[in-house]
Amino acid sequence: MTPEQSPAEQRPATARTVFFVSDGTGITAETFGHSVLTQFELRFRQIRLPFIDTVDKARDAARKINEMAAVDGQRPIIFSTLVQAELSSIIRQCNGMHMDLFQTFVAPLELELGVKSTHTIGRSHNIVDSEEYKNRIEAINFSLAHDDGQSHRNLADADVILVGVSRSGKTPTSLYLAMQYGIKAANYPLIPDDFERGKLPSALYEFKNKIFGLTITPERLTEIRNERRAGSKYASIENCRYEVNEAEMMMKREGIRWLSSTTKSIEEISTTILQEIKPNRREY
Amino acid sequence: MTPEQSPAEQRPATARTVFFVSDGTGITAETFGHSVLTQFELRFRQIRLPFIDTVDKARDAARKINEMAAVDGQRPIIFSTLVQAELSSIIRQCNGMHMDLFQTFVAPLELELGVKSTHTIGRSHNIVDSEEYKNRIEAINFSLAHDDGQSHRNLADADVILVGVSRSGKTPTSLYLAMQYGIKAANYPLIPDDFERGKLPSALYEFKNKIFGLTITPERLTEIRNERRAGSKYASIENCRYEVNEAEMMMKREGIRWLSSTTKSIEEISTTILQEIKPNRREY
Repeated sequence: MTPEQSPAEQRPATARTVFFVSDGTGITAETFGHSVLTQFELRFRQIRLPFIDTVDKARDAARKINEMAAVDGQRPIIFSTLVQAELSSIIRQCNGMHMDLFQTFVAPLELELGVKSTHTIGRSHNIVDSEEYKNRIEAINFSLAHDDGQSHRNLADADVILVGVSRSGKTPTSLYLAMQYGIKAANYPLIPDDFERGKLPSALYEFKNKIFGLTITPERLTEIRNERRAGSKYASIENCRYEVNEAEMMMKREGIRWLSSTTKSIEEISTTILQEIKPNRREY
Repeated sequence: MTPEQSPAEQRPATARTVFFVSDGTGITAETFGHSVLTQFELRFRQIRLPFIDTVDKARDAARKINEMAAVDGQRPIIFSTLVQAELSSIIRQCNGMHMDLFQTFVAPLELELGVKSTHTIGRSHNIVDSEEYKNRIEAINFSLAHDDGQSHRNLADADVILVGVSRSGKTPTSLYLAMQYGIKAANYPLIPDDFERGKLPSALYEFKNKIFGLTITPERLTEIRNERRAGSKYASIENCRYEVNEAEMMMKREGIRWLSSTTKSIEEISTTILQEIKPNRREY
């Protein structure tokens, strides 16, 4: 509850302070706040105040915000997700610009849906007993056990099987799909042995409808591989060109859908895969 | 762009349809929308429409929303994060209840900050070249390489080292910290060998200030372990009681901060760890 603070004099005068205030983890306030702030080409100093779920904690948070306003000489921006009106009103009395996400949208939704909201604190990430949460944890374990072609067991349970050359982004994408969406994502590297045989790893043919390929430009690949094994044949531009070319030819030949990860974040890759693969169990 | 649809007649009349419309991945709209919707004890049918970044795609999305309104016989709820006014206004003409996150908050922020927003499409998750994104990918690789005490190398680079008995939640928490916050999180199991010696794994003493413990009730632990190895000594309630008790005594003795993961999600655990550990590199 005491965010680390660098001395005020070290902060450039232009960096506005932003608070994320929540009765839960603050992840919703922060995700949304970041998204809006990226629309401004300014630097922001960001402070999280999570688990503000009592009147005392709200008063303490309000005091911190007011102190920062005095130190900064300008009012902070406050993104808040507080479901209880009492806590929300304490924060709203601070010296700040208020982006009160729940108060803004929950009241109109109550009207639209014709029911009152439950005003349950910290609900969105306090979900340990839910089926969805259990699926996510199970998916993380599955994706870890099926990382980098480690295991052929239970591939029938996979929602997606990613293939691509080493360091094309398969592992972080698999873990993101599991963690964010509860998708069981296995991944298999395409290696020179596969190119010589001219075939996918044989365990995969049975599940071809679940395969999705990642590729990458040889130029970016050589950069990434050189960070790990500088100067190796593995990382050389010639070898990267060879592997990428062979992998793309194989994916074309086998009719595998694929995309290039070169300029895409794991969030963008995952969203595209969900649209293409449409795992059975849910809608996306 | 064609979300999978179950036949309308299979949907209960009470399930309101919700669209998440975005020019990027839709993750911000969805995170925020879920958070608000959990405040209502209703079932919702959720459809994502990501990458709506041209007029044609916006018109296509609008058509889908209108069709769904007609099929449902009630207007859908629409959470949208569209930074371009032209696209936003196409969606706003749909038959729906509009929760336009950017239009609601960006304009007041422009006034407050005294600068225009950039209106850059899909910016929040299109960040491959940023330092922050590279840190996240590096942290994922670090956390994977240091999962379950696999490696003692580079522990000095770890931001956090999680310890706890097997299946107390260390692995998913480490990966979440890495993926969401770019935190390099190693994790070490506390095992019967450690309890007999009465000491932490020796590689850890040097880094005691970065250690954080997870514990869990023996009752929950036996459940989780029985899912993996039913009927084993490892999973028995007696053994779980023994291990949990020993681990908690060791953490007390060594002055290690810890929390119980029993009823907490990986989001809640991670947020608490960030508050306690305060990794050097950033503020949280």
